[in-house]
Amino acid sequence: MTQAPHTDSQHPFDLALALEPAGAHRFLGHTSQAYWNMIGPFGGMTAATLLQAALRHPERLGDPIALTVNFAGPIAEGPFEIEARPSRTNRSTQHWHLELRQNGEVTTTGSAVFAVRRETWGSGEAVMPDVPPADTLPGMGGFAPVRWIGSYDMRAVRGAKPSAAVGTEHPDSLTQFWLRDEPARTPDYAAVAAWCDAFYPRIFLKRAGFVPAGTVSITTYFHADAATLAELGDSHVLGSARAQVFRQGFFDQSAQIWSASGVLLASSHQIVYYKE
Amino acid sequence: MTQAPHTDSQHPFDLALALEPAGAHRFLGHTSQAYWNMIGPFGGMTAATLLQAALRHPERLGDPIALTVNFAGPIAEGPFEIEARPSRTNRSTQHWHLELRQNGEVTTTGSAVFAVRRETWGSGEAVMPDVPPADTLPGMGGFAPVRWIGSYDMRAVRGAKPSAAVGTEHPDSLTQFWLRDEPARTPDYAAVAAWCDAFYPRIFLKRAGFVPAGTVSITTYFHADAATLAELGDSHVLGSARAQVFRQGFFDQSAQIWSASGVLLASSHQIVYYKE
Repeated sequence: MTQAPHTDSQHPFDLALALEPAGAHRFLGHTSQAYWNMIGPFGGMTAATLLQAALRHPERLGDPIALTVNFAGPIAEGPFEIEARPSRTNRSTQHWHLELRQNGEVTTTGSAVFAVRRETWGSGEAVMPDVPPADTLPGMGGFAPVRWIGSYDMRAVRGAKPSAAVGTEHPDSLTQFWLRDEPARTPDYAAVAAWCDAFYPRIFLKRAGFVPAGTVSITTYFHADAATLAELGDSHVLGSARAQVFRQGFFDQSAQIWSASGVLLASSHQIVYYKE
Repeated sequence: MTQAPHTDSQHPFDLALALEPAGAHRFLGHTSQAYWNMIGPFGGMTAATLLQAALRHPERLGDPIALTVNFAGPIAEGPFEIEARPSRTNRSTQHWHLELRQNGEVTTTGSAVFAVRRETWGSGEAVMPDVPPADTLPGMGGFAPVRWIGSYDMRAVRGAKPSAAVGTEHPDSLTQFWLRDEPARTPDYAAVAAWCDAFYPRIFLKRAGFVPAGTVSITTYFHADAATLAELGDSHVLGSARAQVFRQGFFDQSAQIWSASGVLLASSHQIVYYKE
């Protein structure tokens, strides 16, 4: 992983996000080795790229509020096509239909809601966990042989790796870590969409080891405006993720992304397939 | 509200769910007075009806795992058309594109994931709140002039109505109540989809009164198989809902639906628009 100075346009995340307009509501992209998972792209990168198509669309209104991405089939290394179509545009909100296709086959579907944010009464009810600062913690490292982990700087707070004895069940599925892009990159909505999927499947922690598993559907709610994201600069954010139930081949996973100053930037939920 | 004996086909929920096939991937329905909100249908009923179109589709595979519904525009009293189209069908999972239109205009979009459930290792990590039984609690009643509240029997545990003094902020946004259809109806996936939206907007509780607000997008994960739902019969389920953050016109709301015996039947998340 190069640590050399770079401009945003050269950042691996921006290269992975690159889309070429290809007619009405159509964009062409290509999978990225820097965000490769075991047998396909890192799901967070796929979610970010679908969102990016709406962000780059000439009819875009406002900023992302919600994003749902459904992983319908495998994505192979190579080129892909995204359809990002406004289903409905209102005065201050806009609804998007999203679809990623490879060789004419739908691999990923999704929807997004954009809106013009305005100042209102507000209240933060959830409280950021009390954790040590990022710069006091060692790098987390990956425990799985996946490339995309190297595109992030993660500092483990707890639950970094499965730690229960083999054959036993970990009492909780809570993982917390500090996170930023590697190399550092000033975040935008696409970065946040990817961050929300940066937690390894909760069942690895719960069952203390590798279990075949994959996200089926992820929904992210964006709670920060663009200026708040830009002000984060190259600081780490705190990610926290936990499951509620594992049953009949599926478990849920809810995550929060906090700024170092305690602002809840995003909350995200997913349902994950697992085997056995 | 009639308490007379009824067959399932006469139940107001089934009448509201009724869809007439109208060609490939198309169904015709009609809004229901029994599930009317203030200026449109109860959002939970709309979500249930979109799901029902996939449930009734001749190409359906398996049972619902995830449902996302985006409320893009108002629905008027009267007929509507639903498109429920399989985006991709795999060996044991199926992805759906959902759309509700009125007079040719898209009012609601969504997606669903269905799957064939199979027995696996499982674990319930979240624990049901310790609350008094439903039959020891009085009916909740509505505090807003909406019809659909009368189609449910709700027994308040806490947070039933805004209770903070006007002008003050309630310390939390947690509401818990026991819930069943009224008249009683053996639940199915459509019923659960509706239940997950049965919580009034968290901002009413937080700000101790009515604030213009409406769900923008809701995502529900179904954690129970069809047999588990059928076994509930006419018993109440426990619903719990809470927000994490209210900011710039939007807040989130996460809900859990528990069986009386402590099984997490569904978890659901939504992002809600509010004014001021």
